[in-house]
Amino acid sequence: MEEQLYQTLTDYYQEMVDIRRHLHQYPEVSFEEIETPNYIARYHEALGIPVKTGVGGRGVVATLKGGKPGPTIALRADFDALPIQDQKNVPYKSKIDGAMHGCGHDGHTAILLVLAKALAEQAENLKGTIVFLHQHAEEHAPGGAEPMIADGCLEGVDVVFGTHLWSVDPLWTIQQRNGPFMAATDQFYVNIEGMSGHGAAPHTGRDAIVIGSQMVNTIQTLVSRRVNPLESAVVSIGSFVADNPYNVIAGTASLVGTVRTFKEDVRTQMEQELDDIVTGTAKTMGATADFKYERGYAPVINDEVTNNYLASIAETVPGVERVDTREPIMAAEDFSAYLKERKGTFFFTGAAFPDREENYPHHHPKFDFDERAMLIAAKTLGKAVLAYN
Amino acid sequence: MEEQLYQTLTDYYQEMVDIRRHLHQYPEVSFEEIETPNYIARYHEALGIPVKTGVGGRGVVATLKGGKPGPTIALRADFDALPIQDQKNVPYKSKIDGAMHGCGHDGHTAILLVLAKALAEQAENLKGTIVFLHQHAEEHAPGGAEPMIADGCLEGVDVVFGTHLWSVDPLWTIQQRNGPFMAATDQFYVNIEGMSGHGAAPHTGRDAIVIGSQMVNTIQTLVSRRVNPLESAVVSIGSFVADNPYNVIAGTASLVGTVRTFKEDVRTQMEQELDDIVTGTAKTMGATADFKYERGYAPVINDEVTNNYLASIAETVPGVERVDTREPIMAAEDFSAYLKERKGTFFFTGAAFPDREENYPHHHPKFDFDERAMLIAAKTLGKAVLAYN
Amino acid sequence: MEEQLYQTLTDYYQEMVDIRRHLHQYPEVSFEEIETPNYIARYHEALGIPVKTGVGGRGVVATLKGGKPGPTIALRADFDALPIQDQKNVPYKSKIDGAMHGCGHDGHTAILLVLAKALAEQAENLKGTIVFLHQHAEEHAPGGAEPMIADGCLEGVDVVFGTHLWSVDPLWTIQQRNGPFMAATDQFYVNIEGMSGHGAAPHTGRDAIVIGSQMVNTIQTLVSRRVNPLESAVVSIGSFVADNPYNVIAGTASLVGTVRTFKEDVRTQMEQELDDIVTGTAKTMGATADFKYERGYAPVINDEVTNNYLASIAETVPGVERVDTREPIMAAEDFSAYLKERKGTFFFTGAAFPDREENYPHHHPKFDFDERAMLIAAKTLGKAVLAYN
Amino acid sequence: MEEQLYQTLTDYYQEMVDIRRHLHQYPEVSFEEIETPNYIARYHEALGIPVKTGVGGRGVVATLKGGKPGPTIALRADFDALPIQDQKNVPYKSKIDGAMHGCGHDGHTAILLVLAKALAEQAENLKGTIVFLHQHAEEHAPGGAEPMIADGCLEGVDVVFGTHLWSVDPLWTIQQRNGPFMAATDQFYVNIEGMSGHGAAPHTGRDAIVIGSQMVNTIQTLVSRRVNPLESAVVSIGSFVADNPYNVIAGTASLVGTVRTFKEDVRTQMEQELDDIVTGTAKTMGATADFKYERGYAPVINDEVTNNYLASIAETVPGVERVDTREPIMAAEDFSAYLKERKGTFFFTGAAFPDREENYPHHHPKFDFDERAMLIAAKTLGKAVLAYN
Repeated sequence: MEEQLYQTLTDYYQEMVDIRRHLHQYPEVSFEEIETPNYIARYHEALGIPVKTGVGGRGVVATLKGGKPGPTIALRADFDALPIQDQKNVPYKSKIDGAMHGCGHDGHTAILLVLAKALAEQAENLKGTIVFLHQHAEEHAPGGAEPMIADGCLEGVDVVFGTHLWSVDPLWTIQQRNGPFMAATDQFYVNIEGMSGHGAAPHTGRDAIVIGSQMVNTIQTLVSRRVNPLESAVVSIGSFVADNPYNVIAGTASLVGTVRTFKEDVRTQMEQELDDIVTGTAKTMGATADFKYERGYAPVINDEVTNNYLASIAETVPGVERVDTREPIMAAEDFSAYLKERKGTFFFTGAAFPDREENYPHHHPKFDFDERAMLIAAKTLGKAVLAYN
Repeated sequence: MEEQLYQTLTDYYQEMVDIRRHLHQYPEVSFEEIETPNYIARYHEALGIPVKTGVGGRGVVATLKGGKPGPTIALRADFDALPIQDQKNVPYKSKIDGAMHGCGHDGHTAILLVLAKALAEQAENLKGTIVFLHQHAEEHAPGGAEPMIADGCLEGVDVVFGTHLWSVDPLWTIQQRNGPFMAATDQFYVNIEGMSGHGAAPHTGRDAIVIGSQMVNTIQTLVSRRVNPLESAVVSIGSFVADNPYNVIAGTASLVGTVRTFKEDVRTQMEQELDDIVTGTAKTMGATADFKYERGYAPVINDEVTNNYLASIAETVPGVERVDTREPIMAAEDFSAYLKERKGTFFFTGAAFPDREENYPHHHPKFDFDERAMLIAAKTLGKAVLAYN
Repeated sequence: MEEQLYQTLTDYYQEMVDIRRHLHQYPEVSFEEIETPNYIARYHEALGIPVKTGVGGRGVVATLKGGKPGPTIALRADFDALPIQDQKNVPYKSKIDGAMHGCGHDGHTAILLVLAKALAEQAENLKGTIVFLHQHAEEHAPGGAEPMIADGCLEGVDVVFGTHLWSVDPLWTIQQRNGPFMAATDQFYVNIEGMSGHGAAPHTGRDAIVIGSQMVNTIQTLVSRRVNPLESAVVSIGSFVADNPYNVIAGTASLVGTVRTFKEDVRTQMEQELDDIVTGTAKTMGATADFKYERGYAPVINDEVTNNYLASIAETVPGVERVDTREPIMAAEDFSAYLKERKGTFFFTGAAFPDREENYPHHHPKFDFDERAMLIAAKTLGKAVLAYN
Repeated sequence: MEEQLYQTLTDYYQEMVDIRRHLHQYPEVSFEEIETPNYIARYHEALGIPVKTGVGGRGVVATLKGGKPGPTIALRADFDALPIQDQKNVPYKSKIDGAMHGCGHDGHTAILLVLAKALAEQAENLKGTIVFLHQHAEEHAPGGAEPMIADGCLEGVDVVFGTHLWSVDPLWTIQQRNGPFMAATDQFYVNIEGMSGHGAAPHTGRDAIVIGSQMVNTIQTLVSRRVNPLESAVVSIGSFVADNPYNVIAGTASLVGTVRTFKEDVRTQMEQELDDIVTGTAKTMGATADFKYERGYAPVINDEVTNNYLASIAETVPGVERVDTREPIMAAEDFSAYLKERKGTFFFTGAAFPDREENYPHHHPKFDFDERAMLIAAKTLGKAVLAYN
């Protein structure tokens, strides 16, 4: 069966490229996707695969039932684009001003559609059911995964797989990891309310810049002293703004930053202790501070058994030269939402152009990927479906 | 002679009020004064006092020679207004949108003009020469005093007196002090050049917010540890700006602040050690920082002998109920420029409305003063002229 | 009368030197004075001046009534020595191991005794009463002044004078100042209670060194931001101790420091805000801190009228070449206790050896003073007594 | 063969216990071992295994040649004790005052000796050569491993295995990990040379406590900002000492701390940037600082292939209930020295008493371990020898 699948996918590779390039020229940014889900739905309908649209907002869920009993396996591909101006010079360059598939979701969609076509052709031999999760709005918290789940997209699903084409990992490789793989990404806001005054009379005010600077310093101790050194955590403050004339005591200052963690307990610790530091430092120095912490996506934590399964499967896929255990990365993905509900795993499919000196990172205006990685990803996901039991 | 002077000034009090109210309605901001110096020049000319205009730019210098030999005494009044919207509700409210005599320079001018008139009337009995220094642009560094001096306004002058109507000091008082009376006011700019990066990967950048916060902290030690505790010094940072998205390592940050001191050696120490801290902290943390220090007005340092003379004179002036030794203030005045060249003294004439609960401070949109203080000031300066030898 | 006094004092100068050198060889440290008060009491008794011993512990109070009505004037001299090993090489070097008159109190006593002798000789012509306050334990808080006052030494007293021989001020000068002259000197103790742990596992502890360092930094803002820059205040931390092996997280740290101020409100502000910072910083960082603040001597605040009187008197004293307005100093004196109860003034009598390159400061093991200053001090105090009314 | 080995070891278990208890009663601390290496040498000699003593100082190396060709495999056991007073209450308690086998090296030695006996019994069937590395002075840097290697103990060796009985890991488990397993442990010393002065005159000194506190704060940014958040690093300062009277400006302060890392590049970065911060902060604040960094043991980095081999072997060993992938620990081991020269792996053998609520950690005065773990360790090492090729 898998030999047949590999062959079919190889035969349809050009269609996969065509789909990807079509989507690439007509990107739609998060929460504004209209034509893309329509396109996806029509494709499944044309294959005779039952499809639901508007799932959790703009998601599309297609369900292919196999001819034999077996597990229900979900495959997820996101389809939204980014508000970036395409600066590549290629025939399939974005035709939409200020929007671009700068993260490879066009490829993810092409992979899943053509894989659906290939699997549909051998449906009667398939064991169990395949659920194709086409997700909107991955790029923009709160994301599409949670509303799609709330709308029932995981009902009956036993396990979920997903991949990300990765433009800076080597082509012909699968990059996987047990456990924490991508970080939780949270955001925090601090507003310090001191008291303004004349710069010549500091004692008449409460200097929010001095207070903010103390906060920034104390916050460094969260990572240096409070987090287990065997865990990873980042607290970065991207913005410190107190903009007054030179001779004024700053009455207010605002800080905005991000927290990255891989584990819920570390995340909760960071949130709590940041609050303690912000509130406590302000109080200690005679001011007050407002602290707001917004949780973004949860960390992607791969299920060990499922991921080991995927890794062992991947080693057998034709074209895969190497299965690497990859370092986790501190960026985020709302694939984490599926993993909170079901076992499953998320992996990267290496997609760097082997012959280019520089492969642009994701979200770069010149981002692109080697399309041959799509075939590798499709075969790996397809084999994962066929071999699962 | 002085009795006659007091009487004349009292008789002309209404004219003093009229002049002040006229000027108040037609304020002209620093370095844009046109009608005001014309008005002043015409007034002196009408009195037959020789006058030079355009001194050091827009200054007016009138010179009254007495009939007898004696010293040359300069009296200074500034005449520029502020870019503030007048919010008082009085008949003589500013008629110029966005400009206001919010610091009392209209009063200073009225005092000097009417005093010139009164002195001119007894010119043949006067010993020596009186130089009336009408200065533009006191409110805006680099100020009018320095160019007027460069243009020769102090040539032949032996001593210089000046007063400031002070809206928050009690009416019927003279406020004086030996030595340091008003502060040097300098400005500094820091530009930190770190390295930007993704907030999730702090090690790839050099966090300018963290570096800036360390600077702010270390700068506190200048006043707390480095300045003689018996001296006064202030370092205030009014602006700390590093404005990036939440998930970015700040590559740059800029700080702007002020330094206030009363003594040249402390001022120089502050400038030097600020530079050391800014440059050293950046270097220590793998970044660079650009430091610029701009000296504003020098401190007003009253000559002890001249000031004691003024204080003893003031005690004899009718209407003066009290001569106070006033605390120095950390605001600045370019009267300091005259004091660097000649002996002299600068004092405050109390001008609070005795019956008002709140007297607005200088530069406030509702600033005003009790006009009777003008008479006190005129008599005190006049007596200082007559009695000086 | 005063001419006679000056002459008598001059005649007895050698006795003054003898007394001083005798005391210098037999110093007694604070709260351990036995022979010194005995010596003083016997001297007064021999003069026929009524004397009380054991006043407030070890003080001696002699009361000389003049023959005419008049005010009651107290003169104070302290008589305790310091626990310092004398390192001078002079014939009158201390004969007591580990004790030394390293602050000139031997001189103060000699001045007062011989002045008593001179005044007693013209007692019938004296107006009013002279109270000689010989005070123990000035060098060691809580000092001797307060218990002597509590024991009634100021009963009936109208005004109090005192002087300090000052080894680093020029001989033949009197150094005086209105208002704040010597600082309040307080002491504080911080004990941080964090949590110990292995240096390799910082998250298991609460690092008291990091917490203490944050405190030290925040404490700098007290002087740099919280105190009026026109006031003087010092917060110095002399001791920071957390002494563990290199691989241990410090569970505790202790800080000890001093606060110097000239005004009660600034002093109270420092105490309160230090407490806020210590307690708040510890709490913010998950620890606790114990804060103890011990008030030492109050600031010496000279009464303006009395001090001006003293200054004008001093100018007339033969031998006084100059009366200076001295900078205040941030050291302390429990003469402040008398000034809280009565008007009065405290001044320095310059006592530097004119021909020495280096005059050792007070409390130095080689401290000494030019004994001729004793005669200046005696004449000045004597004249102050005679001329007071 | 392995069945025979397991049986022999089981049969000799009591001897293993006896050896361990004998050594436990006669501990010898690092670099003072005399009887222990003699005991070990005699044991091997009695088995007829050729032995070298005094290797690299006090090490003992025994070499058992098998009857068949094959690889040369080294097994390492350390044998030194700690300068700790034994506080256990057991019959085999230490008889040496102030010395104790508080880390289980007595057990390591017993394991290796009895394993040598068991292997010697089937020597003719063994493939290759077994080198028994009995190492002195593991507890005290610079340790015994480096001199033993310098003395040739690894000559001809292909691979090296070692284990540590681990009192807080569960009995019947093997705890292993690919790559970094134990940390590099370095030590640093900072001596700040500021300038002393009187606490009332901070400007006359350079406050080493304030400078040291700034250093401590800036040092926090090493871990929080400079190290890749996916790496582990710890900088802990165990000692901050500046011990002066309360009214003195601290002229000097000394800090002592430790750095823990798993990778050479991170280690080098920490050393370099610590130096930058210490030197730069002192300079910025007008002082100097002396910085000394002493490298301790390198990190233990297990070879992936060898460790995977060990892990798969361990799973087959009778009595081993579980092979865990253990978290790395930030303590150090000079087994790292062997791993820098040869491939190999170091693992923990769980040795907690299953029925005790509290199992004391290593170096605790009540440390002990469940002796049954010795049999598990011996079987695992023995199997690793037999199966290796």
